[in-house]
Amino acid sequence: MAEKKITKRSEDYSRWYTDIVQRAQLADYAPVKGCMVMRPYGFAIWERLKEALDKMFKETGHSNAYFPLFIPESFMRKEAEHVEGFAPECAVVTHGGGSKLEEPLYIRPTSETIIWSMYGKWIQSYRDLPLLINQWANIVRWEKRTRLFLRTTEFLWQEGHTAHATEQEAMEEVRRMLDVYRRFAEDHMAMPVIQGKKTESEKFAGAVDTYCIEAMMQDKRALQAGTSHFLGQNFAKAFDVQFQDEEGRLQYVYATSWGVSWRLIGGLIMTHSDDQGLVLPPQMAPIQVVIVPIWKKNDDKAKILEAANQLKEDIATVATVKLDDSEGVSPGFKFNEWEMRGVPLRIELGPRDLAGRQVVFARRDTGDKSPAPMDAAAEQTKVMLEQIQTSLYDIAKTFREDNTREIDAYGDFKSFMENGGFASCHWCGSAECEAKLKEETKATIRCIPLERRRETGACLLCGKPSDGRVVMAKAY
Amino acid sequence: MAEKKITKRSEDYSRWYTDIVQRAQLADYAPVKGCMVMRPYGFAIWERLKEALDKMFKETGHSNAYFPLFIPESFMRKEAEHVEGFAPECAVVTHGGGSKLEEPLYIRPTSETIIWSMYGKWIQSYRDLPLLINQWANIVRWEKRTRLFLRTTEFLWQEGHTAHATEQEAMEEVRRMLDVYRRFAEDHMAMPVIQGKKTESEKFAGAVDTYCIEAMMQDKRALQAGTSHFLGQNFAKAFDVQFQDEEGRLQYVYATSWGVSWRLIGGLIMTHSDDQGLVLPPQMAPIQVVIVPIWKKNDDKAKILEAANQLKEDIATVATVKLDDSEGVSPGFKFNEWEMRGVPLRIELGPRDLAGRQVVFARRDTGDKSPAPMDAAAEQTKVMLEQIQTSLYDIAKTFREDNTREIDAYGDFKSFMENGGFASCHWCGSAECEAKLKEETKATIRCIPLERRRETGACLLCGKPSDGRVVMAKAY
Repeated sequence: MAEKKITKRSEDYSRWYTDIVQRAQLADYAPVKGCMVMRPYGFAIWERLKEALDKMFKETGHSNAYFPLFIPESFMRKEAEHVEGFAPECAVVTHGGGSKLEEPLYIRPTSETIIWSMYGKWIQSYRDLPLLINQWANIVRWEKRTRLFLRTTEFLWQEGHTAHATEQEAMEEVRRMLDVYRRFAEDHMAMPVIQGKKTESEKFAGAVDTYCIEAMMQDKRALQAGTSHFLGQNFAKAFDVQFQDEEGRLQYVYATSWGVSWRLIGGLIMTHSDDQGLVLPPQMAPIQVVIVPIWKKNDDKAKILEAANQLKEDIATVATVKLDDSEGVSPGFKFNEWEMRGVPLRIELGPRDLAGRQVVFARRDTGDKSPAPMDAAAEQTKVMLEQIQTSLYDIAKTFREDNTREIDAYGDFKSFMENGGFASCHWCGSAECEAKLKEETKATIRCIPLERRRETGACLLCGKPSDGRVVMAKAY
Repeated sequence: MAEKKITKRSEDYSRWYTDIVQRAQLADYAPVKGCMVMRPYGFAIWERLKEALDKMFKETGHSNAYFPLFIPESFMRKEAEHVEGFAPECAVVTHGGGSKLEEPLYIRPTSETIIWSMYGKWIQSYRDLPLLINQWANIVRWEKRTRLFLRTTEFLWQEGHTAHATEQEAMEEVRRMLDVYRRFAEDHMAMPVIQGKKTESEKFAGAVDTYCIEAMMQDKRALQAGTSHFLGQNFAKAFDVQFQDEEGRLQYVYATSWGVSWRLIGGLIMTHSDDQGLVLPPQMAPIQVVIVPIWKKNDDKAKILEAANQLKEDIATVATVKLDDSEGVSPGFKFNEWEMRGVPLRIELGPRDLAGRQVVFARRDTGDKSPAPMDAAAEQTKVMLEQIQTSLYDIAKTFREDNTREIDAYGDFKSFMENGGFASCHWCGSAECEAKLKEETKATIRCIPLERRRETGACLLCGKPSDGRVVMAKAY
């Protein structure tokens, strides 16, 4: 596994990324165009993500359910903007059980239509609201250019779909779930994000408003890491979902939907990793600590292994730990392998350590090595894992801040964008200026940040008045 | 929810089943032919199933991964028996992203072909073996007659796919996973099963041997509840997967696959439920205990609710508990509702109970009511949940034994089958007799049990010699 070097970021950032995904055995290309296989080590990261998010969804009152993969063509057509946005990128089943189908079935590119057709059966009264459902599912969108984790024809995601009696309640849900995503990204993935609202041209097809979290990758490009949509009454009207309110009046239901996908794993890789391979924050690491025992020919191997096993038991009380006692490869080879796989903490234990009742800690993120008494190893592990988690977040946040600039002149913007970063700029709000920006610079308006100060300025492109800055960047 | 009665089993068994599934809100018909929606309460049962099985898979050394939904048509054709068995029931994607595809894509009816194409990339040496992977996924098989949970066009399942250096190791895996299924069915679902081997005509398309667990439903029909296949070198040869053994020779890999689906939930319902609705064994119940506080107009509601909340906290230390303090419906209504939903244990708490510092326990399975001191409620809950779990298993096992008969004359067999049950009969081993049996009686050979005594006899159909009995029954 460690026989081939990983391309350096400075050489070819895109190849560096692909090298890590494949060499750390996170994912592999599938023999179906645009599809990938998530391998066991990648899937173990996905399981940590899923478990943590699922807990947060349940704590905020949501239940899981499962809706069909297939959407009848006629359902897709019920919401005008939705079909326009999604139909062109759908996979279509035309044959089943050996015969041509009467109506083609679309493979879900997102599940609003099939879910709202069911909500119409389930919702009658205000007593049935709010309805708070999430599903973990596979999704298909026919993508022209694909990239492991970041953009694949089929991907795994979760999609929350909620129904509410009032607009206000629905808006609160939209922001609540956006904040769940922020907390997950920051506290678990150590990936700082900006919360904001998408412009009209970037919003979800069928939404009234789309909110998002945006992160900065190490190449200074933006990654949209999660979205939360206020759907208004669009889908309720398309599927005729009304409820009787407390006064007995019939009213259309308000909707939200929100989702994150395995794309987050791409973001995780590009936020922290380095030229040695994957770097994982402890909260996301399937293996948090690896113990590498060291012995030479004349050493008492049995004694070292006995101590290593005891150490493993101690560490297991505070972290997920693996003892690498495999034969036939050198400790140095093992160091490289586990570094490449992003294990946050390595503990080395050799004959001299054993004699001195100590172990050596090596941090994956900084490379720092430090000894600690063997009896204090578990306590020290706990402390160091917390330090690594915090430090990775701080470094990513500093990196983003160092590469974010308020820019007021279009010329300055263009030279800034050559090097990349987040530009905080005034924008008049017109679709024309937004389109021009994209065409001339390949940068897009990532979001209108939720936290922004009122400030009078002139649009970067046309000079018309603006009352606050938006975030512009090149994006994945 | 409790406004409409459930059809009695004696009236119409099939409608009774569908009534329970829909009224307990486990699942609902989807607007796509043959598909269903698993609703939150049904999904919560699925989550318990998934969590328990996933833990057992990991304890036996397996990791999860995810492979693509799509299988190129050419892959399906690589294993001759496999394509013959599965191609006719596949859904086929012919269009994607607005264009006709060059090669049609099958939606996975099972994933052997796509997985073995990847194993070919990953397996080179004996050091890469065994490879022990499982995936939780959705599957599509175009079914003509469908039934909620038991047979649906799309369904959720898990499929394990393992690769081994030797035939013996692969066979051990096949039996190990069959036993995992048996343990899960018996210990978690309280559903006794018979382990056995399928006949040639009933085995998986592409397998050398298929093993299964078979359960008896309350209408005395058999349900195939899980299968574990020995695939020999069939898929390794079809996808050219060879490894270098310790002596440097190239050899084909041996394969197994094994799976259970949401069909198990259908089996769970039909094993334990009654005319009042769902009955769940505690291990599978999303809510194990419901507390129903009781008050009338002049009672001190606040005091009762305070005690109920305290009780809930106590019970929560030993079980999953819900306090139903909803307003506007009578305790009797609540009793019916939670009975219909199969909550194993109800605790009632009224003013007289409070005065006497006691509560009343009501078992869902037997209907028995018994008082217990309030301070002992948690301890009592634990004991009773264990009793219920054991009792449900014992009743199901006795039911199966009471409806299993050794039969040697074809005439007796036919009259036995009118009433239903498992017949233990001699069979000569020929496909002709097996086909005749099915045609004339609609019963099939469910399995050749693993535990069977050697016994000389005469085939039920042709009278030719046989050395042991097989299980015959009508099946789902």
